[in-house]
Order: sequence, then structure tokens, then C-alpha cells
Amino acid sequence: MSGSAPSITFVLVNTTHAGNIGAAARAMKTMGFASLRLVEPCKYRTAEALARASGADDIVHSAEVFSSLKEAIADCHQVYGTSARSRSLEWTVVSAKDAALQISQTSSSEGKTAVVFGRERSGLTNEELDLCHHRLWIPTNPDFSSLNLGSAVQVVAYELSMALRGGAEKPVDRDSTAENAPADSAAMEHFYGHLEQTLIKTEFLDPENPRLLLRRLRRYFGRSQPSVTELNILRGILTSVHKSLERRS
Amino acid sequence: MSGSAPSITFVLVNTTHAGNIGAAARAMKTMGFASLRLVEPCKYRTAEALARASGADDIVHSAEVFSSLKEAIADCHQVYGTSARSRSLEWTVVSAKDAALQISQTSSSEGKTAVVFGRERSGLTNEELDLCHHRLWIPTNPDFSSLNLGSAVQVVAYELSMALRGGAEKPVDRDSTAENAPADSAAMEHFYGHLEQTLIKTEFLDPENPRLLLRRLRRYFGRSQPSVTELNILRGILTSVHKSLERRS
Repeated sequence: MSGSAPSITFVLVNTTHAGNIGAAARAMKTMGFASLRLVEPCKYRTAEALARASGADDIVHSAEVFSSLKEAIADCHQVYGTSARSRSLEWTVVSAKDAALQISQTSSSEGKTAVVFGRERSGLTNEELDLCHHRLWIPTNPDFSSLNLGSAVQVVAYELSMALRGGAEKPVDRDSTAENAPADSAAMEHFYGHLEQTLIKTEFLDPENPRLLLRRLRRYFGRSQPSVTELNILRGILTSVHKSLERRS
Repeated sequence: MSGSAPSITFVLVNTTHAGNIGAAARAMKTMGFASLRLVEPCKYRTAEALARASGADDIVHSAEVFSSLKEAIADCHQVYGTSARSRSLEWTVVSAKDAALQISQTSSSEGKTAVVFGRERSGLTNEELDLCHHRLWIPTNPDFSSLNLGSAVQVVAYELSMALRGGAEKPVDRDSTAENAPADSAAMEHFYGHLEQTLIKTEFLDPENPRLLLRRLRRYFGRSQPSVTELNILRGILTSVHKSLERRS
């Protein structure tokens, strides 16, 4: 994430299970975030929290504690309040994905963005939601929308991270060395010729009536897009068949 | 999700913390999934697991237990193995989002899809990944990629749910007759056995040192997802090689 990436802080309100604070810290860190704020939390630097943080204890230790949500978000220019339910007719609800896209389009010069998560059982109060500028909703199973707090943080942090990557940084589909590049059409044609000769030799293919079988094989191998290395292996197999037939004749 | 939605099962291998099985069940249920398979799990119907399941105990109780990954995925036509590491020189890696899109475009008539999650500390072994057709990667912070197991399940379940809601149109490049359905894992294993015997016979494969070659072939043929008909053709070719060698010896 570049220097102009938005500055994002995760705010947990009245968390009652220390383990969930550890889990939230770990979820944040796996997605590249570090700023955690706690509003009136339970005792949270516990063994369970650190166990669940599992290497993200730095985030647990550096968490800032506030006595109200208002103070916790005082320096934030954009505030998203999360809600499991889309219960209010009055609110504009933004999905986690859309919120992440919006946030990713702001820059650090526009100030801090906060994403606020409520209590394990009851979420955020209406008064707390009134302090938020946007309501963020994680789409869930309508019959079982009870996301664990750490999981909610995980999904939001994941969407933010994906949005900040801009979808640009895709995983390498293949590595880019020449051997792993897909074989080109000319190489595929040589392979098909080699395959046809082999199949005639093993009498699998009737040269008088080869049409449908060869077409099917072309469709299959064409679809499978072998790399240069893979095509070399396939041709090596065909050569080994030829040689072993010659040895025995 | 409609009746033609793909049938998706989550497979956890050698989980050592019962709490994570509960968390995975809850993560699945919040996103509308119910099929959980466990390969050699720890004792898992524990108080901690049920507490973490927090209302998803039905999934914990109905989980199916297997003694090997091979058995757990035997009836699955598409198998995604998750990996924290993004870059392998040899593997085709699919992001969680792209995998979800791919899976959402299959239909239940094409058989079951499995997403496999490895051990908390060490993930899946290479041998286990060899049984998977695709490698699924959740993009993470390269300096701290240690996703909790429940969180990994949460992200994948979330992406699957989002993709299924997206109602992507079905691809038209396969028709849905039984012969055109992708071959299942058991059929692929028979094919690999047949292929190995053939390659030993043609002396392409040194049975003393088969590892890398067989792994490459598995990766290639796994990725190419032959249909039932195509696999029959490939096995017919192998049989023709055996027979023609016998005729000449």
C-alpha cells in the first residue's frame, strides 16, 4: 500500500471477550492493518487474547483505549458503523465490498477513516450508529447472521485489503519463466502430429477414420493449455512409447 | 441459492484445536453453507468447539469424519486446496475471489466441489495438495500471512456466498450431460495409477525416483479437468499402449 493510502483505524466498542480482541488484532495484521482502538473494553491483555492474536500481540499492546465512541472517532473524517442486520429503513447501508471501494478511493491527506464494530451480542446502539457517517453491512445468511466479532473484522479487513490492492496485484497464475509459459500453437501442432502417429502405432486410432477422436483430443489438450515444460513431458511420453515398441519388435 | 447452485463441502485436515472446528462451522453457517468434512480431526465435539460454533452446533454434529483426504474428496469433482503461500514456482494459484467465481459458475449437476483447509501450523502437505486440482490462495500481508483457520474458512465462505449472490451466468463451454461432467477424484486416481504403470513400462518413469514427474503430471491433468468421456479416451490410449507392447513382446 502506497504512502497515499488512506489511514484506517479499527474501533471495537465494549468488547466483552478478550479472545475476540486478540482475534481481531490477528485478522487486521494478516491484511496489513495496525491501528486498533478500543472503547471501554473488557480486560484485554490476557493470555487468551495474546494466544488468539498469535503473533499480532504488537497490535493488542499498542491498542488505544477510549471511554466513549465519540472520543475514539474524534479525529476521523469518515466513520463506518458495522451492523449485521439491515434493520433500519432510514439508513443507507453500504456493503463491506462497496465500503472498502469507497475507502480505498480516499487518500491519507483526507484524514483518518474508522470502521466501528459493536458488542458481541448486541452490536452498536442507535446512538452510536448516529455518530457514524455510513452504515456498513456484511452480507450474511438471513437465517444465521451471527458473525463472530473477529470474523467480522476479518471480512472487512480482507475487503479493504483487496480494494487497496486494486485487484491489480493478482496472484501469479503461472510463473513467468519461459518453461512455464503456455506452449504456442506451432508447438501444439507438432504435439498433435506426434500424438496421431503414436495412436496409429498402438492401433488406438484407425487412420481410415480418425476424425472424431482427433477432434476430441485437440479440444481436450487445447483447453488444458499445457506449458512448454508440460508439453515436453507429454512429447517425452510419446517418444518413450515409440522407443519401447521398437525395442520389442 | 437456487436448486442448481453448486454443492460445496468444506474439508478440514488434521485440525488440532476443537475451537477452530466450531469457528469454522459458525463461519460456514453465517454464509449459508452446511457440509463439513473432517479428516483425522482432534476430539471435536467439545465444550469449546460448541461455544465457538455459537449456534452452528448442527454443523459440528453433522460433520463427516474421514481417515484420509483421499477418501474425503473421493466423490468431489473439483477440489481446491488452500495455501497461505502465494508463490510456488510450479503451481497455478487461484485467488479466493477467482476460485469463488469459478465455483459459482458450476452447477450441482456437475457434482460436488470441495475446498480443503490444512493444519493450523503447517497447512496441507505437498502430497495432499497433489490430490487437489487447484490451489486457492487468500491474499494476505506478506509479512504476516498467518490466518486463523476459522478466519480462512470465513473469507472463503464469504467470497463463495458473494459470488453465488452475484448470480453469474453459467458458462456454456461444457454441456451438462453425464459424459461431459468432469471426472471425479476417484476416477482421476485410477487414471494416475494407470498412467504410472504405463510410464514404467515404456521406461519413461524410473520407479525408483518417480516423485517430481508424477507430481507434474498430476498437476497438469488435474488442472485440465478432463470430462468423463475425455478420461475414458485417455485411459483407452494407455490400454492401447499396454496391448501393443504385449503383442510385440
